[in-house]
Amino acid sequence: MSAHTKQNGCSGNQCTAYPFKVKREMYREQRQRLGAALRSSKDATHAAFLQGGSEVPVNSTDVNYLFWQESYFAYLFGCSIPDSFGAVLADGTGLLFIPRYPLSYAVWMGELPTPDAVKRSTEAEEVYYADEINAVLTSKGVQTVEVLDGVNSDSGLNVLTATLPEGSKLKASHGWLFNTLSQQRCHKTDLEVELLQYVCKVSSEAHIHVMQHCKPGMSQHQLESTFLHHVYYHGGCRKVAYTCICGTGHHGAVLHYPNNDAPIENGTMALLDMGGHYMGYASDITCSFPVNGKFTEDQRTIYNAVLDAHDSVLRQLKPGVNWVDMHKLALRVMCGHLVRAGIILGDVDTLMQKRVMGLFQPHGLGHLMGLDVHDVGGYLQGCPPRPEESDCCKLRTARVLEKGFCITVEPGCYVNRALLTDAFENPEFKPYLNEAKLRSLWNFGGVRIESDVLITEAGAVNMTRVPRTVEEIEKTMAGAPFSREIQVFTH
Amino acid sequence: MSAHTKQNGCSGNQCTAYPFKVKREMYREQRQRLGAALRSSKDATHAAFLQGGSEVPVNSTDVNYLFWQESYFAYLFGCSIPDSFGAVLADGTGLLFIPRYPLSYAVWMGELPTPDAVKRSTEAEEVYYADEINAVLTSKGVQTVEVLDGVNSDSGLNVLTATLPEGSKLKASHGWLFNTLSQQRCHKTDLEVELLQYVCKVSSEAHIHVMQHCKPGMSQHQLESTFLHHVYYHGGCRKVAYTCICGTGHHGAVLHYPNNDAPIENGTMALLDMGGHYMGYASDITCSFPVNGKFTEDQRTIYNAVLDAHDSVLRQLKPGVNWVDMHKLALRVMCGHLVRAGIILGDVDTLMQKRVMGLFQPHGLGHLMGLDVHDVGGYLQGCPPRPEESDCCKLRTARVLEKGFCITVEPGCYVNRALLTDAFENPEFKPYLNEAKLRSLWNFGGVRIESDVLITEAGAVNMTRVPRTVEEIEKTMAGAPFSREIQVFTH
Repeated sequence: MSAHTKQNGCSGNQCTAYPFKVKREMYREQRQRLGAALRSSKDATHAAFLQGGSEVPVNSTDVNYLFWQESYFAYLFGCSIPDSFGAVLADGTGLLFIPRYPLSYAVWMGELPTPDAVKRSTEAEEVYYADEINAVLTSKGVQTVEVLDGVNSDSGLNVLTATLPEGSKLKASHGWLFNTLSQQRCHKTDLEVELLQYVCKVSSEAHIHVMQHCKPGMSQHQLESTFLHHVYYHGGCRKVAYTCICGTGHHGAVLHYPNNDAPIENGTMALLDMGGHYMGYASDITCSFPVNGKFTEDQRTIYNAVLDAHDSVLRQLKPGVNWVDMHKLALRVMCGHLVRAGIILGDVDTLMQKRVMGLFQPHGLGHLMGLDVHDVGGYLQGCPPRPEESDCCKLRTARVLEKGFCITVEPGCYVNRALLTDAFENPEFKPYLNEAKLRSLWNFGGVRIESDVLITEAGAVNMTRVPRTVEEIEKTMAGAPFSREIQVFTH
Repeated sequence: MSAHTKQNGCSGNQCTAYPFKVKREMYREQRQRLGAALRSSKDATHAAFLQGGSEVPVNSTDVNYLFWQESYFAYLFGCSIPDSFGAVLADGTGLLFIPRYPLSYAVWMGELPTPDAVKRSTEAEEVYYADEINAVLTSKGVQTVEVLDGVNSDSGLNVLTATLPEGSKLKASHGWLFNTLSQQRCHKTDLEVELLQYVCKVSSEAHIHVMQHCKPGMSQHQLESTFLHHVYYHGGCRKVAYTCICGTGHHGAVLHYPNNDAPIENGTMALLDMGGHYMGYASDITCSFPVNGKFTEDQRTIYNAVLDAHDSVLRQLKPGVNWVDMHKLALRVMCGHLVRAGIILGDVDTLMQKRVMGLFQPHGLGHLMGLDVHDVGGYLQGCPPRPEESDCCKLRTARVLEKGFCITVEPGCYVNRALLTDAFENPEFKPYLNEAKLRSLWNFGGVRIESDVLITEAGAVNMTRVPRTVEEIEKTMAGAPFSREIQVFTH
């Protein structure tokens, strides 16, 4: 194609042929909650003011990456027009400001978005052009805009802070919005839960399909391709929430294995960490299974160690539970299994005290999830800081769980060659490691079992619907149909 | 997953399970050509110095887009490690400088890339760490580095200009490299042609598969998903060269239709512009066909107008041919068909003089292609400037064709509602338009027929291998197997 850039902003938000329709009340409710927070700590001369994302070019070319709306903005407006702005007034009214495109847009990108059309598709209360921001906000009595400003605790990057148009007499205040809105995003509304359950269901089905399709002799990339196709074709997930991790054999020990380009060897384990992304919301699911459909004794032992950790945590979850305690619980449960299997040596208390399990699970138990796969809110102002112990310091949050949190539970156990080679030489760890046994597992890779869980008033709900026990996996891979309802845990 | 970013740089370049192995001599030959250019206009104290691309985060999150190496750097080194640097000495020696990662990289991303391993996988002549740039270049007698600096004529963005390490005593010269290397990239080597033929073959097969799969009642996004899956699963194309354009019905008139989210209605045309991307190289193919597999009379008329333009151009192509002339030839051929069909009114000479065809094909005939889908070299220093006439000004190049150019031929004919609505009111165009007929085609959308062509010494080669005639398309969509060899045109 010629002239103009190859863009991909979805102007309409009306994915009429997609299988799940996001209710626009979801965004309205989210704006109302923010409005209430504004009323309780500011006055009506304050409004929240956010800037949406822009197209991102591939290097210096005129090809853009698939447009990915900024999450705070998406959360409030569900609008996927690049270069938009939005404001929420103290009464919860949402004002959307869209760019004014030239006529050539209609030739290259489709119907010109007008305020009327965007009001219909987004159901924002009022829609204007971006060049009307100053006039509109002033006419609403706004004097100070609360802008986002803060650091994403997972990436270390600053969030997108809205820039006021030139000549604006509005005052920008940086203190309040980041913390308030990040906190708010931690507590999922019922409509958000509906959407998250949908994307978890689609992703679960795709995992099952991949599992049933996997055969030794294939390439890892074919598993990724099968997943991507399933979530998009059947579920309308044009994007995945993060790059698929399709490790088999020793690659399974690489936590974010990015390549997915090796042959799948018979007798190895697959560790597939993949999640669809639907209308701005993520899922994040890991399944681990033997590529040929039958667990060996070693595979079963390690798999069941991780599954026991996973299930033990699930049974404990409810508001008031400390996430660091859950992390330690998972490590302790796995530790017991590894001791009984003769993989590590000593008693569980000593091994936990020596932090030996950090060698086998060099990551945290899980993270908040929502719009972003690693959702905001992990280390906000006033929340417990990151733990310092070597076997806990990778945790993405150290919070006490609250109703409405959506969090992953993802214990893992890996034979990580780099870490273990180091540890065999380290007098602090050496006595506790059965080196011969571990070297016999050198090609094992790893097992991770990851579910997406919602904290409810009474306990938790597991939204991930995939085969989990050894028996379920073996049956499913032999071709038996599998279905699972959402699991509810109450106390 | 927890801690550290979800990255996706492919460190190895050893896609062992992929179906086509790129020969490393390709990059060596490309470095040798650049070395020869350096020798002929500079001296041995000069070296080309380039910076590779970096990971690009999605907004402020810790998820990255799939890594996409910068094309000039990829062209010379075929190395997909983010944050690398490269130099080419006057004797053609390639020096690669890779980042020195911390040990945690091995836990999260896989084996630490070492100079030895990267030398084996990339076959660069010498590989070092990036913190050795100054010392190594100085030891080679380099005093001045020629860095890229210039504007991509398709995007208007500046190319990535390498930054010398702090404390460097090397001089950076900005004049020479951009023009030299952009020119060089226009002339494909035999090994590049082999690779381009591969990606065109894979993309052609995927188009055929999509065509045979398309049914009224499906959604556009399912066509996109089917294509993406086919090129990745079967062809190893993890990326596509640009966002798929899957327009059906009136969406087909939107040149870069980005949404692909509408239902496919019976009786409409599909216009699918999609191309795989393999190891840095692009393809760019458009097929147009009736979604139910049978052309209506109007569909056949417009389709054959575009096909005649496409074929007429293909028959003319050879070194020495002026691209602007080809563009005008295509418009003129289509114009004749539209006149005979009674869609536009008047004689061809007058209609061409009035530039009426600019309303029906508001884009250029085609563009250079290679690593980038809109490849560099369109409007370099010393090349003819962009034409000013309204029906030619969108051309991405106005050059005279040379042996080794790879260029798309993509005439199109659209019923663009925005442009025509305007034109019906414009006395300059009104007399030449059969408004009633055009309004009867209001939902037609468009036809584009796009092939990837290599200019040879004796003529041209069409690397695109899809059904093109009405008969071929109808048979293929009815389920008949289709295969086509590369077509050679000689004069």
